[in-house]
Amino acid sequence: MHRYRSHTCAQLEKGDVGQTARLSGWVHRIRDHGGLLFIDLRDHYGLTQCVVDPDSPAFALAETVRAEWVIRVDGEVKARTPETTNRNLPTGEVEVFIREIEVLGKSAELPLPVFGEPDYPEDTRLRYRFIDLRRETLHANIVKRSKIIAAMREGMTEAGFGEYSTPILTASSPEGARDFLVPSRMHPGKFFALPQAPQQYKQLLMVAGFDRYFQIAPCFRDEDPRADRLPGEFYQLDLEMSFVTQEEIWDTLTPIMTSVFEQFAEGKRVTKDWPRIPYDTAMRKYGTDKPDLRNPIEMQDVTDHFRDSGFKVFANQIANDPKVEVWAIPAKNKAGAEPIGRAFCDRMNAWAQGEGQPGLGYIFFKEGAGSGPIAKNIGEERTDALRAQLGLEDGDAVFFVCGVPAKFAAFAGSARTRIGTDLDLVDLDSFELCWIVDFPFYEWDEDEKKLDFAHNPFSMPQGGLDALQNADPLTIKAYQYDAVCNGFEIASGSIRNQEPETMIAAFEKVGLSKADVEDKFGGLYRAFQYGAPPHGGAAFGIDRVVMLLCGAQNLREITPFPMNQQAEDLLMGAPSEPTARQLRELHLRVNMPAEKKG
Amino acid sequence: MHRYRSHTCAQLEKGDVGQTARLSGWVHRIRDHGGLLFIDLRDHYGLTQCVVDPDSPAFALAETVRAEWVIRVDGEVKARTPETTNRNLPTGEVEVFIREIEVLGKSAELPLPVFGEPDYPEDTRLRYRFIDLRRETLHANIVKRSKIIAAMREGMTEAGFGEYSTPILTASSPEGARDFLVPSRMHPGKFFALPQAPQQYKQLLMVAGFDRYFQIAPCFRDEDPRADRLPGEFYQLDLEMSFVTQEEIWDTLTPIMTSVFEQFAEGKRVTKDWPRIPYDTAMRKYGTDKPDLRNPIEMQDVTDHFRDSGFKVFANQIANDPKVEVWAIPAKNKAGAEPIGRAFCDRMNAWAQGEGQPGLGYIFFKEGAGSGPIAKNIGEERTDALRAQLGLEDGDAVFFVCGVPAKFAAFAGSARTRIGTDLDLVDLDSFELCWIVDFPFYEWDEDEKKLDFAHNPFSMPQGGLDALQNADPLTIKAYQYDAVCNGFEIASGSIRNQEPETMIAAFEKVGLSKADVEDKFGGLYRAFQYGAPPHGGAAFGIDRVVMLLCGAQNLREITPFPMNQQAEDLLMGAPSEPTARQLRELHLRVNMPAEKKG
Repeated sequence: MHRYRSHTCAQLEKGDVGQTARLSGWVHRIRDHGGLLFIDLRDHYGLTQCVVDPDSPAFALAETVRAEWVIRVDGEVKARTPETTNRNLPTGEVEVFIREIEVLGKSAELPLPVFGEPDYPEDTRLRYRFIDLRRETLHANIVKRSKIIAAMREGMTEAGFGEYSTPILTASSPEGARDFLVPSRMHPGKFFALPQAPQQYKQLLMVAGFDRYFQIAPCFRDEDPRADRLPGEFYQLDLEMSFVTQEEIWDTLTPIMTSVFEQFAEGKRVTKDWPRIPYDTAMRKYGTDKPDLRNPIEMQDVTDHFRDSGFKVFANQIANDPKVEVWAIPAKNKAGAEPIGRAFCDRMNAWAQGEGQPGLGYIFFKEGAGSGPIAKNIGEERTDALRAQLGLEDGDAVFFVCGVPAKFAAFAGSARTRIGTDLDLVDLDSFELCWIVDFPFYEWDEDEKKLDFAHNPFSMPQGGLDALQNADPLTIKAYQYDAVCNGFEIASGSIRNQEPETMIAAFEKVGLSKADVEDKFGGLYRAFQYGAPPHGGAAFGIDRVVMLLCGAQNLREITPFPMNQQAEDLLMGAPSEPTARQLRELHLRVNMPAEKKG
Repeated sequence: MHRYRSHTCAQLEKGDVGQTARLSGWVHRIRDHGGLLFIDLRDHYGLTQCVVDPDSPAFALAETVRAEWVIRVDGEVKARTPETTNRNLPTGEVEVFIREIEVLGKSAELPLPVFGEPDYPEDTRLRYRFIDLRRETLHANIVKRSKIIAAMREGMTEAGFGEYSTPILTASSPEGARDFLVPSRMHPGKFFALPQAPQQYKQLLMVAGFDRYFQIAPCFRDEDPRADRLPGEFYQLDLEMSFVTQEEIWDTLTPIMTSVFEQFAEGKRVTKDWPRIPYDTAMRKYGTDKPDLRNPIEMQDVTDHFRDSGFKVFANQIANDPKVEVWAIPAKNKAGAEPIGRAFCDRMNAWAQGEGQPGLGYIFFKEGAGSGPIAKNIGEERTDALRAQLGLEDGDAVFFVCGVPAKFAAFAGSARTRIGTDLDLVDLDSFELCWIVDFPFYEWDEDEKKLDFAHNPFSMPQGGLDALQNADPLTIKAYQYDAVCNGFEIASGSIRNQEPETMIAAFEKVGLSKADVEDKFGGLYRAFQYGAPPHGGAAFGIDRVVMLLCGAQNLREITPFPMNQQAEDLLMGAPSEPTARQLRELHLRVNMPAEKKG
């Protein structure tokens, strides 16, 4: 017999009754039922109920065993009675009558319990992460994370992508977030940087002739704590393709990621044919470039209904500024729900005021007519025209925002979310996926009073060099796209600008010269001089995808060994003070901030 | 038609003749054959010959095209004549008559050519790595590397292992090589370290209840340049299992790695049933714990044949020191080869003297008798007995080393290699794999005059606590093993010491107290207090496995973006000087060495 186990704790079933089994695992729970000791034994795979009666030679030892001890047990598999069968457990039809126990690893008094998974302070959970990870929910999340990543790899491999690792000790990137630096011992005063993303390397791989690259890539950003990002490192599914159009990239990635979602959606619906929504359309319909399409509300421009109308608050704004628009947030009520009435509308209005807005105008429909102050002000004809445009009926309502869209779009998007959520219109049993495409190439930096790149400076502008030379820069779109799921950006990508001349022209518009480009992106710019293929790609945020598929609210629920929000690894005690010798070898001196000196 | 290609450069074949094809790729070579221009077009997948004649509308543009330009061509697929067919090329039966060319990416004058792969200075190759990677050999190696790693993943996954990523920003490890440090911005004066290996984390995963872990793990060591190790980072196939014996680990890994080797051995023989050779046996038979089993020579102890013999050089040493032994290196000559004679033996003797040895005694056999000075000295009877023990015949020879085995074993191993190689006994068409097992737990540190761990301090000593308390420490073996292929260590592993009491006892022998253990290995030692399962694992050196399977001599031939031996990334320009702001944020000052100041 195997030294430690004949079966895992998930394997024994009715067919094994009468056999002798050997199991090893953790004591999940131990109960004394009138002299009988019940030990739930747990391993990676599952749970098996074991029993010791006072006649067993193992009874005396069993009485000393405590929760989370690691033990090996030998015993006979017996059927449970129908009343004691546990249908929630694959092994629920049997139990093991223990004849022998070996203690493999005792446990000191537990700083946090595993059984029952009660809430415990985050610091304790992180310091004793090896215990926290035994809890069923966290354990299942981490296993699921591993399987999701394996499914991504499988999908990419089947689509002909090869995985190539890019360096982790590399050069500081002048764009983007703050780098983690690594002092070079051999080159005093010089530092490596950890990659914020393998962007330049993957593009170099394309220039080097590798056609389809992907990598489950560790990325590093030294940013201040944020709720949606752990300090330190994160992973992305990074990919790049040569000789492609953006449509081919979407066509390639959509079925791969749909399949990944479907494999782990646990019955939730997954979008198969991801809509491709232009950025401008997304902003107008959803007030955001990360729309939650589970919310059926689509906003519409209803400016004309208010022009010269009796609702002077809007009419005057429209008259005074040609940029002003009125957007409608139409709320088609859920079938069978109470009609949307004044109380709900007033609640939304109050919420808007709490958000710092003047309010949220509305009309609600009942008995074939529109109700509320706005309906009264604009009159029946305009109200009917509005209702016709928006396709609303009795029991429905519509809310309005007015102003310059660039300024109110974000609030309008929040209002859409709030209204959809409060009316229970959001389909929580689905993963709604889409591509947001045609992002603007430039944006106006109001602080610096100059053009800046709206997103990735390495993207190809639509229209190429010609557009850069002749078009209004703020009208130029980029071959740049995001993937969005349920209101979260899960990927970003673009067709790259691989033409040196176009690259220089693009950077010149934001005030950077050819010399700046050579200085900042030397490796990549130099490569483009020597036969660069058209190429493009994307990067999916693995943590975000895993969070969505696990239904997790916090990154620490899907990461095996996370740091805390103060960027400390409480388990291993990092960061820590270096030895004098280490600092000497690295040619460094620590320059403590004044308040920490002495 | 696709914007860039209807086929890759490896796809067109006879069945496509008459069709219009669109290809994109690099101009591998361009030749002018009496007015006809031949363009070999290359992409990731292969090569296709294209032709432009002076009547083609693309001729004028084709004349301007140069090597390594990226172009798209449209044209008709035509059959080549039998005389011009290239049987070495999958596309060798056809060529594309170009009707249209689009230049997608020009190339400046090349700093190193791709076609022909001539030798070029390493620095140029690294600075222009994106061009170097286009060369057929390097490109093929990198693709093979990616496929080998994918095969490892597949094997591990099929065996029920899950891949879990462990942190890259972590704590400094007090054992082993020098760490790379990463200054913490948020904690002035404190540093993270990059992991030398995920050793502690994978053991923590076992304590956390994950049964079978693996990871293609990036590892980091800040070591001075060595021929067999690139500066900076390297990858290992890291794995760990719970509730296992070492035999189960070997049984699990042997078929996985055999399969990986077989998939990429390109016809070479691969050991299926890896022998398990105790360390002591390996040292005696091969003079090394990394034996090249392609060499059939096995050494034997022949001390008794020389005791009190007429060969006084050996006999006196044996008489004076009971530790002295004589080892034979028997060379069974290759079938059909010239008999091994005095000339060869004298050459080996001279080689040994060049190695700083007094010489290499020998007997060679011809005409039914032993020849040479030693045979003469010990006489016919002893010579015959030697020959019988070693199973040698006419045409064979045997070499001798004499002394204290611990001191001569390494030289004896070199002599075995040299003799086997020079006699062409080494089977170059095979991958000979084995496990070396039962390594000593402690060794004597002559410099410090104290015991030290021979290998991994986290290994379980055979015999456990009892052996530590009662046995001569230098006789204790560890549950510690290596995998060896063709003379190279490709993996190392052990059953871990997960018992806190045994761990403390093991460290005490090398002069470390319980407090030291808590201080240095706090995370792991603390974890062992709370229910640790028996566990063990191994780590395979991926770079070494890939080198063996690619037949590469240099790590830079199997790494996409290596640093040079001075630990510089010439392509990206790393390491580089930080900005003053970066240093300020990290609370650091550079302390330049005196000779670099000013």
